[in-house]
Amino acid sequence: MKVKLGVSNRHVHLSEDILNVLFDGDLTKKRDLIQTGHYACDETVDIKTDKGIIENVRVLGPLRNYTQVEISKTDAYKLGINPPVRDSGDLKNAAAVTLVSDKAEIEVKESCIIATRHIHLTPDDVSKYGLEGIDKVSVKAEGIKGSILQNVFLKVDESFTLELHLDTDDANANLLKTGDLLDVIK
Amino acid sequence: MKVKLGVSNRHVHLSEDILNVLFDGDLTKKRDLIQTGHYACDETVDIKTDKGIIENVRVLGPLRNYTQVEISKTDAYKLGINPPVRDSGDLKNAAAVTLVSDKAEIEVKESCIIATRHIHLTPDDVSKYGLEGIDKVSVKAEGIKGSILQNVFLKVDESFTLELHLDTDDANANLLKTGDLLDVIK
Repeated sequence: MKVKLGVSNRHVHLSEDILNVLFDGDLTKKRDLIQTGHYACDETVDIKTDKGIIENVRVLGPLRNYTQVEISKTDAYKLGINPPVRDSGDLKNAAAVTLVSDKAEIEVKESCIIATRHIHLTPDDVSKYGLEGIDKVSVKAEGIKGSILQNVFLKVDESFTLELHLDTDDANANLLKTGDLLDVIK
Repeated sequence: MKVKLGVSNRHVHLSEDILNVLFDGDLTKKRDLIQTGHYACDETVDIKTDKGIIENVRVLGPLRNYTQVEISKTDAYKLGINPPVRDSGDLKNAAAVTLVSDKAEIEVKESCIIATRHIHLTPDDVSKYGLEGIDKVSVKAEGIKGSILQNVFLKVDESFTLELHLDTDDANANLLKTGDLLDVIK
């Protein structure tokens, strides 16, 4: 079983409340992402702490019930924070960061995480590849800086398209880029 | 067998000729490194290309017969270059970068690489751990973002101290830091 990689650069998901603080009007779609219904927006924000700032971070749509900031460990050093490694939406004790737009800035407590490695797939993919009862796998990056990356969690939903999501640290450490095909190891 | 990690941040080794262009006088030792005779210097340079710049990069001593710039893939994207993954001193077709000091700046062709993962060890370590005839191993990083990192080359010399060197991309992807102990897999 091989899976196509999508490298997740740092990005921000917004709740309606925080959107309304930072921007006038709705999110505006810039381009669709691989996962159906997900899109990159024209809107960007700066991520700020008292130790550093990362500018022009893309907002992804649609809106969610929570505001979530996904960064890499490299980004976390730049910001001087220690966010936990978490699944989307699991924000208990996540790190606090301040989001800055041209209109406003607001500190969002328990918003910032490093995302767990994960694969999006459908129930049909689970059957097809014999993954019933398995919640995580490993994936193999080939090459001179290759690794077997562990704890790659399976996220199953009818709406999903088969895709591996790794952050930029994982991608750069293994010299991987979006579109690369990786072997899945059960 | 476990080995202690030293994370290699981006750094520069200078030849005498390039030292004389960039600085007045000899390198000045700031602190000793783990490997005997190696040291971090007070001197720093900026690494510049036509696409970007990384400031205040540490020079390591002593002088070498070649000038070598070791960066991560993350750094390479910032500089807009594509350096090869290489052992120290293997600089054929390495990337060109410009080194900048307060005194001067100079482009150094075939100087910039991403270092191969490696372990420094003595011939006694080779015997002790049964590594005769083996030129590379894997190492295992534990934890939620753990991996089995492959192609970790063995560098054997009487003068060496047992130490694993990984770049900041490998360290950050696996949430590792200097001093961590990793299992070696033959």
